[in-house]
Amino acid sequence: MPFRAARFYAGKRVMVTGGLGFIGSNLAACLVELGADVLLVDSLEPETGANPSNIDPIRDRVATRGVDVRDALAMERLVADRDVIFNLAGQVSHLDSMRDPFTDLEINCRAQLSLLEACRHHNPSVKVIFAGTRQIYGKPDYLPVDERHLLHPTDVNGINKMAGEWYHVLYNNVYGVRACSLRLTNTYGPRMLVKNNRQTAIGWFIRQVIDGEEVQLFGDGSQLRDFTYVDDACEAFLLAGASEAANGEVFNLGGPEPISLRDLIELLIEIVGHGSYRLVPFPEEKKAIDIGSVYADFTKIQRVLGWQPRTALREGLERTVAFYLEHRDQYWSDRTAEHRTLNAEVGARP
Amino acid sequence: MPFRAARFYAGKRVMVTGGLGFIGSNLAACLVELGADVLLVDSLEPETGANPSNIDPIRDRVATRGVDVRDALAMERLVADRDVIFNLAGQVSHLDSMRDPFTDLEINCRAQLSLLEACRHHNPSVKVIFAGTRQIYGKPDYLPVDERHLLHPTDVNGINKMAGEWYHVLYNNVYGVRACSLRLTNTYGPRMLVKNNRQTAIGWFIRQVIDGEEVQLFGDGSQLRDFTYVDDACEAFLLAGASEAANGEVFNLGGPEPISLRDLIELLIEIVGHGSYRLVPFPEEKKAIDIGSVYADFTKIQRVLGWQPRTALREGLERTVAFYLEHRDQYWSDRTAEHRTLNAEVGARP
Repeated sequence: MPFRAARFYAGKRVMVTGGLGFIGSNLAACLVELGADVLLVDSLEPETGANPSNIDPIRDRVATRGVDVRDALAMERLVADRDVIFNLAGQVSHLDSMRDPFTDLEINCRAQLSLLEACRHHNPSVKVIFAGTRQIYGKPDYLPVDERHLLHPTDVNGINKMAGEWYHVLYNNVYGVRACSLRLTNTYGPRMLVKNNRQTAIGWFIRQVIDGEEVQLFGDGSQLRDFTYVDDACEAFLLAGASEAANGEVFNLGGPEPISLRDLIELLIEIVGHGSYRLVPFPEEKKAIDIGSVYADFTKIQRVLGWQPRTALREGLERTVAFYLEHRDQYWSDRTAEHRTLNAEVGARP
Repeated sequence: MPFRAARFYAGKRVMVTGGLGFIGSNLAACLVELGADVLLVDSLEPETGANPSNIDPIRDRVATRGVDVRDALAMERLVADRDVIFNLAGQVSHLDSMRDPFTDLEINCRAQLSLLEACRHHNPSVKVIFAGTRQIYGKPDYLPVDERHLLHPTDVNGINKMAGEWYHVLYNNVYGVRACSLRLTNTYGPRMLVKNNRQTAIGWFIRQVIDGEEVQLFGDGSQLRDFTYVDDACEAFLLAGASEAANGEVFNLGGPEPISLRDLIELLIEIVGHGSYRLVPFPEEKKAIDIGSVYADFTKIQRVLGWQPRTALREGLERTVAFYLEHRDQYWSDRTAEHRTLNAEVGARP
């Protein structure tokens, strides 16, 4: 963490929405380390990535509020005295967004507008960093995907996340509520949700390999992806929060280098010490929505904020596997039959 | 109107949302002419472009329902037996979207999702043509703006219209509910709302010139714009509704050739036979959101659907002025003090 950004957070009143989730809780740990006054807001809904165990190491050094970001009045009070808001709460499931587009709209659009309206009226000098997603690019027109790439999202979730990001840019440009967005690619590391495969494919792969269950990859497994280790993602959030150059901007994150899903699984099997995978043909309906290879160009954030992914994939996976072997009890619960059926998704959307 | 598309509508059950508005009512008149079974749906809210006088010539040959598109249950029943839906209902005011972003969200996002969900579940073989807007491009990166231009909307309305358009593309791609979007530029002609300047700047200019009131243009009036005569816009809707090649696509409309606002006003003054205008400096806050020159490349719809604007600006303006001179009583009402204050908008957003 560059010194300037590190010092910035000492004594700062920071709020993290989705603070008990995967990235939120890792970010919270960094902020505690940097001496910030940390408020974690989370709905704690069972279907989200929230896991109370995620903040075990910092529980006594953060304030937490069990508030849903859709609760506009409660959020209005919470934003009022904050210096920085890391806005990570969101509905992230592709399938849920297609089954119930209205709930996705409430969380990813209406709640974002509410938060920004609250900032505008009650705390206009706050700074907001939004967790966007590279999924809004859809199936890439070219690789690597940079921020000039057209947005053509392929699900309701992607459309709503696109709108949610734009509200942030708009409130920055029109009202001076300083805001920016990081378009996250596949983020992985300790505290990912792995009780089912709703959040990340890589978390689910890790669980399957550890459990000695055969991983299924659609197609020939040659699809390229990039992976950001969560500590690197947190550093990007911290840099963006501390930099005026980030205001109004959108930035891709990225990984050290693209890797095929097949190579990823083989590396994972090597690290875990056992495991197997099998290539299976794309089901017709999955083939139709397959986005092929996708990885991001992160030179913009490198240029503007000095960020780059620093954790090699092998190192990140080793730390992640070690974490889950140690904390299995807190993360392995409730693999329901429904979640098994979702498995077919992971080939297409890691 | 090409013969193929003209014949297509005979006996077809067609619904037009926003059917009592400017473009909706003109489109309804075309559809009646072509022998379609026409259902007009409109909230008839006073702040919208709906005007019962708009359907005076066809009142006995269409069915109308005073239903708001936000009424999901009512819409579900109405879509069920339709062959084609021209989906023109929307919140179009920049200022309203900034004052009340949630209502804009309800109309331009949630109601669109509801309509598409209703089609998916109750009438999956319907065809939907969405009225999009070139405003989602924001301040152009290059001219003319084609469909590959990045979307960077500059207000809540633009963001929500962008999402609303994408829902249509998505439901086409994922569920096979055939849908496409026309990105309208400045459309003008008989039945524009001119009782205030909430809908179009050109309508307001026309009213001011007819009333002998001095028109104010911000800057030097050199900003270029393109204008589509409403009959041409209607033809584009009819072509899109009758063509399978349109499915899943977005198309810019455009005008015969770009014209500066200053030349537009001078042409208008010439046609009306009197009038005046004055150039005034951009107020600071308007300068910040000025989008400069903007006009669209319409070669895609020309190539795919064979559409092009056919009405010269002078001819279209002459017909429009003649219409308002004849029907002034039905269109001139209720120019309130509030509406006067909105006048400052028109320089920036015609």
